[in-house]
Parts: sequence; structure tokens; C-alpha cells
Amino acid sequence: MSAEVIPLKRKELEGSIEPMLSLTAHGMNQVNQVILDRMQSEVPLIPALAGHLISGGGKRLRPMLTLAGADLVGYSGTRHYKLAAAVEFIHTATLLHDDVVDGSDLRRGKAAANIIYGNPATVLVGDFLFSRSFELMTEDGSLKVLKILSGASAIIAEGEVDQLTAQRKIDTSEQRYLHIIRAKTAALFAAASRIAAVVAECSDEQEQALDEYGRNLGVAFQLIDDALDYDSNAAAMGKDRGDDFREGKMTLPVILAYARGTEEEREFWKAAIGGFRTEDEDLDHAIQLIERHQAVSDTKLRARHFAQRAIDALSIFPDGKARRAMTQAALFAVARGY
Amino acid sequence: MSAEVIPLKRKELEGSIEPMLSLTAHGMNQVNQVILDRMQSEVPLIPALAGHLISGGGKRLRPMLTLAGADLVGYSGTRHYKLAAAVEFIHTATLLHDDVVDGSDLRRGKAAANIIYGNPATVLVGDFLFSRSFELMTEDGSLKVLKILSGASAIIAEGEVDQLTAQRKIDTSEQRYLHIIRAKTAALFAAASRIAAVVAECSDEQEQALDEYGRNLGVAFQLIDDALDYDSNAAAMGKDRGDDFREGKMTLPVILAYARGTEEEREFWKAAIGGFRTEDEDLDHAIQLIERHQAVSDTKLRARHFAQRAIDALSIFPDGKARRAMTQAALFAVARGY
Repeated sequence: MSAEVIPLKRKELEGSIEPMLSLTAHGMNQVNQVILDRMQSEVPLIPALAGHLISGGGKRLRPMLTLAGADLVGYSGTRHYKLAAAVEFIHTATLLHDDVVDGSDLRRGKAAANIIYGNPATVLVGDFLFSRSFELMTEDGSLKVLKILSGASAIIAEGEVDQLTAQRKIDTSEQRYLHIIRAKTAALFAAASRIAAVVAECSDEQEQALDEYGRNLGVAFQLIDDALDYDSNAAAMGKDRGDDFREGKMTLPVILAYARGTEEEREFWKAAIGGFRTEDEDLDHAIQLIERHQAVSDTKLRARHFAQRAIDALSIFPDGKARRAMTQAALFAVARGY
Repeated sequence: MSAEVIPLKRKELEGSIEPMLSLTAHGMNQVNQVILDRMQSEVPLIPALAGHLISGGGKRLRPMLTLAGADLVGYSGTRHYKLAAAVEFIHTATLLHDDVVDGSDLRRGKAAANIIYGNPATVLVGDFLFSRSFELMTEDGSLKVLKILSGASAIIAEGEVDQLTAQRKIDTSEQRYLHIIRAKTAALFAAASRIAAVVAECSDEQEQALDEYGRNLGVAFQLIDDALDYDSNAAAMGKDRGDDFREGKMTLPVILAYARGTEEEREFWKAAIGGFRTEDEDLDHAIQLIERHQAVSDTKLRARHFAQRAIDALSIFPDGKARRAMTQAALFAVARGY
């Protein structure tokens, strides 16, 4: 018997979004058609503003989860296209409102909608897309889907308000932080995945498994997002580097660096998160402290933990193209942070 | 045969909200209970901010329409309490977002939520209430109600964006203005009334009649609101006097005064609506021009026309306490402008 170990190929370790893109390519064309059709309005500013964000190179990861989930459970109908579009509309509405809330300048590397069209129109077009998403769900007619997505929407808003409350609060715990990102990010990932099982009339166990996949993936996704804001190695992203820092957001890299810091370092963090140290040199210092305590790399390890849980949640489903694509996507979601 | 004419009592001409209040008193207690229960959240800022507006002395006219409509058609169940609360949540969400959009300082005579809690929290709590309203509808389980209210919500957002587009545009026509207020205000009045017929499983004709009542009442209501912003006789209202003027909103008093004005007056209006004449003395001048052309009193006459159409829409229903209360309420809605 040979003791030779065959190493995993780099690609397999890092995961890839390609199998997911290829799995959902046909369906996403249908979803994109619904999105384009239903963002129309007789009021021209609405499709103009919505289109700025919607055509702005988003990954459309959430509707992709619905499509992949449907494939995983062998659903052969077409209801999921409209529902996946509804999911993307909820997401787009929250992005528009987030940009107003955060006073963002950039989104996906372009000027944020609020910068071009102003806060008022951005808030209202968010409301429009949110309403449209409920129109789409109502047309589909599943009260169970409506319950899942209206519940998720309320939880997202709660998470966003909670995040606002925690802003500039240096004593925010990791537990509180996880609670916030479960609400503001993971709830919609979970709902997007879960509704695939609902339209396919799967067992509760399958529904639950898809929910777990989405939920853990969402947590991993947000952890990586928050890590990248302090990652000195990260390539330029779509958002302004150091946004979280200047806004005094208590994300995990800061929570870990503060917890592990010396008295002197903690004084710095109190001042920085309090909004009194927000210059570029302060950001540089923050990144140094975060590196000193492995706070970014440990945030990424936490993300890997949740990605693995997402992958393991799929174990009740038979191996196949869909499951492999969803596994690769989860690995990829955290690998973008490595 | 006596030629004596018995004059209508002043009270009957002016209408009164009292019969409506008394008709819906018991039901509104139930509705208020649902509102209080369902605005709760584990995130304390949410009930604090929502409660500021919700306990802030609003008339809750829209849920009252649902209750009065239910009484009118003889509905004896309890489903309408939850749905009336959903209607009020949609309304409250739009008020919160409006205050952000308009940069309001005052709402119902108190500091607006955005002034106390800031724009970010105000936007997000609006989103929360909006989501909650769809949760309430989903719990009720009527897809027809969901269709009516999700459709109305999208139309409200369209109307608000349209109003934004028309802002500072002196060439806005009366027709465009009516289109905007039908969307931003009357759509929810119509939906609130209509859903009473839906829960009571009325005929299409009855459903349509309640829709017409609410829609025309909503138009009348908004016309009076817009008239009062320029009414030199109006008692102090909950909002800052002259808000519409300073924001360059093209409401009917301005549209009429501009249409009927001399060249010189039109030049003034162009400058004022364009945002170049917004001092107190400019507002005084605007009110003078509006009075010169009977633009406020004619706006009120337009309102009376729509109130009368609302009242006549009820003619298919038998006379009785509910119909009389709804008639009196429509008269009252316009009389507050006299």
C-alpha cells in the first residue's frame, strides 16, 4: 500500500465560482429578464436609478443560490425565476438604502446611486423595488415563500438598525457582531436558498439543509467582506478602502485586535472607533495593529469555519453537479480573502 | 304646501369626523394593539423610533377606512384588524421616508424622527415597518389583499419619485399633479377601503365602490393638505408653514396661480419654484398672488368635487350608520380647509 499523498489541486482548495455560474447560466438569463422587465416604470427616474445599480456588475449571488438550490433538489418548473428576481430586488433595495445610511461614495467601484441621484430618489427607488419584490412573490402565490421573505426582510432591517446602534461602540462583542451579520446578511442568503426547497415541495429536512447552507455561507461572506476592509494585501475592491474604519463599524478584525491589544492599543481603538482618529495614517496604524494580532487572518479562519458548515449542510443531498458547484462556491467565497 | 326651506345645519354641511371615530372606536382599539405588538423588536431603537411617530397623535385615518368599510358591508370577523394595522405600517414607513426625503424638521407638530434619530435609523425603521406590514398580510393569508397592498406600495413609491422629478419644474400641469397625488396619497386610501370588501368577500361592484370612495377621498385629502400650506387663514398645522414653497413643490395652488398670473407674476413664480426666492417675504408675496387668483379657494373647490364623488360612490350601499359616518368624514376632510 502506497503512503503517497495526492495533494488537492490549488483550484480545488480555493474553490471556484465557475461551476456555479455555468450551472445557473441558463436560469440567470430568465431571472435577468424578469429583473429588467419589472424594474420598469412610467416614471423614468426609477429604471434609470435602479439600472445604475442593477447593471453595475453585481454578482447576483443570492438569486443564483435559489437557482442552484432548485437544481440540487431536482426542481424542473419555472417559478423560481420570478422568486429569484424578488430576492435580488430585496437585496438591491437594501443596497440603495445602505448607501444612503452609510453616506457611501462608491459601490462596486462606481459612484454610488445616492451620489449621482441624491438621497431622496435613492430611498424611494429602494422602496419601489421592495414593493415590486412583494408583487412578484404575490404573483407566484406561495404564502410560505411570502412568509420566509417578509420575515427575512424584517430581520435584515433589524440587523441594520442593530449595526447602527453598535456603531462607535468599542465594547461590541464577537457574539453581538455575529448576531448582526446573521441578520443583515445571512438571513437573505438563507431565505434565497430555502425557497428553492419550497417551490420544489421538498421535505422539511431538505428545506432546513438549504437554509443552513445559505445562512452559513452568508456569515462567511460577510466575514470576508469585513476582513478585506483591513487587508493590506487585498486588491482594490469596489468600495472605498477603510470605510468601515472611518464609520466606526465594529467588525470582527477590530473586535479581535481590541480584545488582544495592549492598554495603549486599546486607547487607540477607543479613539479611532469613537471617530477621533480617522486620518489615513490612523488607518495605517489600525492595519498594523490588526496584522500584529492576526485579526484579519483569524477573521478569515472564522469565515472558513462557516463555509465548511455550509458545505456540510449539503451532505444530505446526493453528490452531483449542483452540490459540487455549491461546494466550490462556498470555498470560493472565503478564498477571495486569501 | 309650504315653500319654507329647511337649511342644512352647519354641522351637516361641514361634516364631522365624530361619527367615524365612534363607529370604529372598538375596532381601532384592536388595531392599535396589533400596531403596538408588532412594532416591537429586540433592537430597542426600533420601537423607540417607530413609537415616536406612531404615538405622535396621528389620526390613523387609513386603518379607520378599513374598519368603516368592513362595517359598511356587514363584515363580522376579525381579520380586518391585522390588515388595518398593516395599512398603517405602510403609511408610517412612507412618512418616515418622506421626512428623510424632504429633510423635514416637524411632523404632526413635533420634531420629525429624522431630526431626533438621524436619517440612517429613520430609513431603516421605515424598512422594518414595511416588512412587518407584509408579514401581517402574509399571516392573514389573502393573496388578493397582498396583491392590492403590494401594488399600492409600488404605486406610492412611483408617485413619490414622480413628485421628486416634478419638483422645481414650473411647467408641471394640473393633470400631472393629479396623477402624482393619486399615486402618492390616494392609492393607499383606495387600498385601505377596498380590502374591507375583500375580507368580507363582497361582489366586485362593492369592492370597486369602496375603492372609489377611498381613492376620491385621498385626492380630496391631499388637495386640502396642499391648499393649507398657502392658506393665510389656516390655523397652525403640524408642519412648517411654507414647506412646499421652499421645497419648490408644484402643488395645485401654485399651478393655478402661475397659470392665471401676469407675465411679471410668472417671473416671480419661476424664480421662487426654482429656489431663488425662498425668504419669508417671498412666501408672503406668493400667498398674496395665490389669494389674488383664488388659487387656494379653487383648490378647495376641487377637493370638494372629489369628496362628493367619494360620497356618491357609496350610493350602492344601504343607508345606515356606517355610510353616514363615511359621508360625514368625507365632508369633514374638505371642511377642515374652509
